Amino acid sequence: MDVSSTSLDLTPLESVLPEGCLITDPARTDKYRWDRALDPNAGVPMAVVRATCTADVQAAVSFAAARGIAVVPRGAGTGLSGGASAVTDCIVICTERMRSIEIDPLTRTAVVEPGLLNAEVKRAVAAHGLWYPPDPSSYEICSIGGNVATNAGGLCCVKYGVTTDYVLGMTVVLADGSAVKLGGKRIKDVAGLPLLKLFVGSEGTLGIVTEVILRLLPAPRTPTTLVATFASLDDATRAVLEVTQSMRPSMLEFMDNVSINAVEDVTKMGLDRSAEALLVAQSDEADSTAAAEIIRIESLCEANNAAEVLVAPDAETGEAFVAARRMAIPAVERRGTLLLEDVGVPVPHLGGLVRGIADISRANDVEIAVIAHAGDGNTHPLIVFDPMDADQGRRAQAAYGEIMTLAIGLGGTITGEHGVGRLKRPWLGANIGDDALALNRRIKQALDPAGILNPGSGL
Amino acid sequence: MDVSSTSLDLTPLESVLPEGCLITDPARTDKYRWDRALDPNAGVPMAVVRATCTADVQAAVSFAAARGIAVVPRGAGTGLSGGASAVTDCIVICTERMRSIEIDPLTRTAVVEPGLLNAEVKRAVAAHGLWYPPDPSSYEICSIGGNVATNAGGLCCVKYGVTTDYVLGMTVVLADGSAVKLGGKRIKDVAGLPLLKLFVGSEGTLGIVTEVILRLLPAPRTPTTLVATFASLDDATRAVLEVTQSMRPSMLEFMDNVSINAVEDVTKMGLDRSAEALLVAQSDEADSTAAAEIIRIESLCEANNAAEVLVAPDAETGEAFVAARRMAIPAVERRGTLLLEDVGVPVPHLGGLVRGIADISRANDVEIAVIAHAGDGNTHPLIVFDPMDADQGRRAQAAYGEIMTLAIGLGGTITGEHGVGRLKRPWLGANIGDDALALNRRIKQALDPAGILNPGSGL
Repeated sequence: MDVSSTSLDLTPLESVLPEGCLITDPARTDKYRWDRALDPNAGVPMAVVRATCTADVQAAVSFAAARGIAVVPRGAGTGLSGGASAVTDCIVICTERMRSIEIDPLTRTAVVEPGLLNAEVKRAVAAHGLWYPPDPSSYEICSIGGNVATNAGGLCCVKYGVTTDYVLGMTVVLADGSAVKLGGKRIKDVAGLPLLKLFVGSEGTLGIVTEVILRLLPAPRTPTTLVATFASLDDATRAVLEVTQSMRPSMLEFMDNVSINAVEDVTKMGLDRSAEALLVAQSDEADSTAAAEIIRIESLCEANNAAEVLVAPDAETGEAFVAARRMAIPAVERRGTLLLEDVGVPVPHLGGLVRGIADISRANDVEIAVIAHAGDGNTHPLIVFDPMDADQGRRAQAAYGEIMTLAIGLGGTITGEHGVGRLKRPWLGANIGDDALALNRRIKQALDPAGILNPGSGL
Repeated sequence: MDVSSTSLDLTPLESVLPEGCLITDPARTDKYRWDRALDPNAGVPMAVVRATCTADVQAAVSFAAARGIAVVPRGAGTGLSGGASAVTDCIVICTERMRSIEIDPLTRTAVVEPGLLNAEVKRAVAAHGLWYPPDPSSYEICSIGGNVATNAGGLCCVKYGVTTDYVLGMTVVLADGSAVKLGGKRIKDVAGLPLLKLFVGSEGTLGIVTEVILRLLPAPRTPTTLVATFASLDDATRAVLEVTQSMRPSMLEFMDNVSINAVEDVTKMGLDRSAEALLVAQSDEADSTAAAEIIRIESLCEANNAAEVLVAPDAETGEAFVAARRMAIPAVERRGTLLLEDVGVPVPHLGGLVRGIADISRANDVEIAVIAHAGDGNTHPLIVFDPMDADQGRRAQAAYGEIMTLAIGLGGTITGEHGVGRLKRPWLGANIGDDALALNRRIKQALDPAGILNPGSGL
C-alpha cells in the first residue's frame, strides 16, 4: 500500500492547495483512519486534505477523479457506523478547518461551513435568541457536516424533527470536482427535483457538502422534566406508547437496567439500581400547558405501574437527569469496548425490540445496555466487549447482526440516525429490499459513475 | 393524432385491467386533458387508465414502457402549473379511484391511496383525534397523490411544514413498471439514500406514487385569530418580518388591496376596501400562551401603523376570516381568467416582491391580485385576463414571466408549492442554475432513461 501511495505524484494537488493542507506523513494521517466506530478494517490513506474552503475540496476531488482515486469525506470523525473509516490509498478530505458561520436573524437562517461543531452552531445562534434544534448526544463533539451527511437526529427530534428538516440550502462538491449550489434562504421551494433532500443523509456517497444554510427557530422555552422508573420493562414501553399516541413531548428518552446502573456507577446521583427502565420526558410548552402535559405523562406512567415518578422542581434538576441520559454511552463505555447499535422500530414494537435484545444478550453471553429515543422508537443498544477476548469479540459481532435482523423482523430499520457506514452495509439489502437497494445504486451510478466517493460505505 | 392512437392495439392493456378502467372515447377522455392551469398546449391522450390499484398502474406503465409511450400521471387534476396536462398520444394514468385509507392510531400514521382528497384524509384521521397538517387552499378538491407529487404546502406550513415532512413511506411505480416500497411506519430511518424524499415533489417525473404512509399529529388546539389592515404595504410587510423573526404563529397570511376588494365583493363582510394590505395571523398555542402571542402580534402590527387590528372574539369569527382568505382565488376568478403564480422569496424581500409585482401590473396593464403565505415568503400573484382579448392574454403571459424573473432576482423561487409543471419549465434553469438543472436531468436519466414519465413537465 505504501508503495502505491508513494509512487503517485501528489505535487499537482499540493501546488493548488494552501500550505499545510495536504498531509502525507503516516504519523499525522494515522488519526484520520478511524471514526468512533473503530472499524477494524480501516485502510491506510495515501493523503489527508485538511480543506479550508470549497475550492480546496474541489481541487482534491478533481485530482482524485482524474486518477480514479477513492475519496473518503470526513467531518469531526465522531461517526458510529464507520462511514469515515479510511480506504487504503484513498484521499481523506477532512472539513474540520472549515468553521465559519454567518447568522441572518432576519430570515432566521445561518450559513455554516461543515467543520463547525453542532454545539458551536447552537451557541452562536443562541446569542441572537435563535435555536438550531437537532441535538445528537454527541453534540459537543460532532460537526454540522457530519450531521448533514448522516441526517443526524437526537433527543429533541421527537418533537422537532431531524437534520433534513433544518437544511434550506447547500453547496456540494460532486464526484467530478464541480460545485453546485442547491436551495437558498427560502422556506418553501419546489423548483426542480428535491435534490437538497437527496444529499442530506447520503453519507458522502454522492457529494461533499462544503456549506449549508440552516433554518433556525426562535429560542425554546425552558422545559419541564419528569423522570419515571419502572420495575417492569413492559410497563415502561406501554407508558411510552400511551404518551406518543396522544401527545408531543419535547423529549421522551429511555434507559434500561444496565444503563441505569452504569450511569449510577459514575454519577452516584441515587438512581434506583433495581429499576428495569427509566424514562426522561420533557415538555417545552408554556407555563400551565407544560404543567398540564407533565401531569398527563405522570398519570400515564402511574397508570402503568411506575415505581417512582419525579417532576424536577427546577430546570437544573431536570438538566441533571438529561445529562445522566446523555452520559449513558460514556458510562457504559467504562465497562468495555462498545459496539454501538442504532436500530429503530415502529413505537408499538419498542417493547418487543428491547425484550428481544435481552434474549440476544443472554444467547450470546455479552452485556448489552439499551438506551433509546423512545418516542421515536429509535434505540441504541450498546454491546460491551473486551477487545482482548477474541471469542467475546465474535459473540459481540454476532449480537450486533442479530439485533439488526430482529429490528428488520419488527418492521424496523438498521439505522435511525447514525447511518449505514461500512459496518452496517451487509444488512442494508435485507432492510430496505433488493429493489430499493438497486434504486439506491442507480442514483449512485448517476452521480458518481466511477464510484470514487466513499466507496464501500452507505449503500 | 387520432390516427396513431387508433392504430395502436390497446387490447393487451385492456385485457389485464379491470373492466371499465381503460377509456379511449374522446368524449370521456377529454376532461383528462387539462388540470386547473388550463394549459393551452395540452395534448390529446390516446387513452386514460383509471387505475384501481398499484397493479393497474404497473400494467399501464409496463405497457407504455414496452412501446415508448408517454405516461402522464394525474391525481384530482387540481394542479396549477400544468403538471397533469396531457401530452398527445400519451396514456394518462389517473389515481382518482384509488381511495382507501387505513388509520393506525398506535403509530399515529395512515396508509392512504393517492386518490383520496386532502380534506377526506383530514376528516378520517380527525375521527381518531388525529391531524394531518398540510392544508393547500384547495384542500377540499385536491388529492393526496397530487400533494405528494408537488410537495404541497398550505396555510399551516409556516409552523407545521409541508407534505414531505409527513411522508414516512410509499409504494412507487417506476418507469419500467416495477413497484418499490420505500420507508415505513418508522419515524427516524436513515438506511440507504433518502429516496423517499426524492420522490416527494418529483411531479410524476420519476415514478407514480400508489400508496403513501402519512405521519399524523395529535389534534390541534382551536386557534386564536387576529386580523390587521394597513394603509401602507411597506408597513404590512415590515410587520410580517418582525413577527417571523421572533415568533412561530400557526398562520400568517396576506392579502393585497385587489384581493381584499374581490373578497369583499363576494362576502360583503365589511373588509376595509381602502386598505393596502390585510394580514390574518393565528396562534394555536394553549390558552394564556396563545393570548400572549396574539397580543405580541397585535403590538407589532400597531407599531407598524396598522389601520385596524381585530382579535376574533371566538373561533367562528376567526374561521370566517380564514375562509375569506381561502376565498381569495375564487373571488378574484370572478374578474376574469387567472394565471396563477406561486413565487417565493426570503421573507425580508416580501415587500420588494409585492411592490415589484405592482410595477409589473402597471407596465403590462393587467390586473394582478396578490395573496401570500406571508410567513413563508410564498406569494400567489393572480394575473387576471380576458381569454377573448388576445392582446391582454399576451400581456398576462408577459407579466407571468416577469414575476418569476423578479422573484429569481430577489433570491427567490419560481414555485413555492405548486410545482414547475409545464408552464414554469422555461424559467427553471434561470432559477436553480444550469448546473443544478443538469443534476436534475442526471437523476431523471437514471430513473427514467426513455423519458416516458410526464415528459415536458417538472424538469
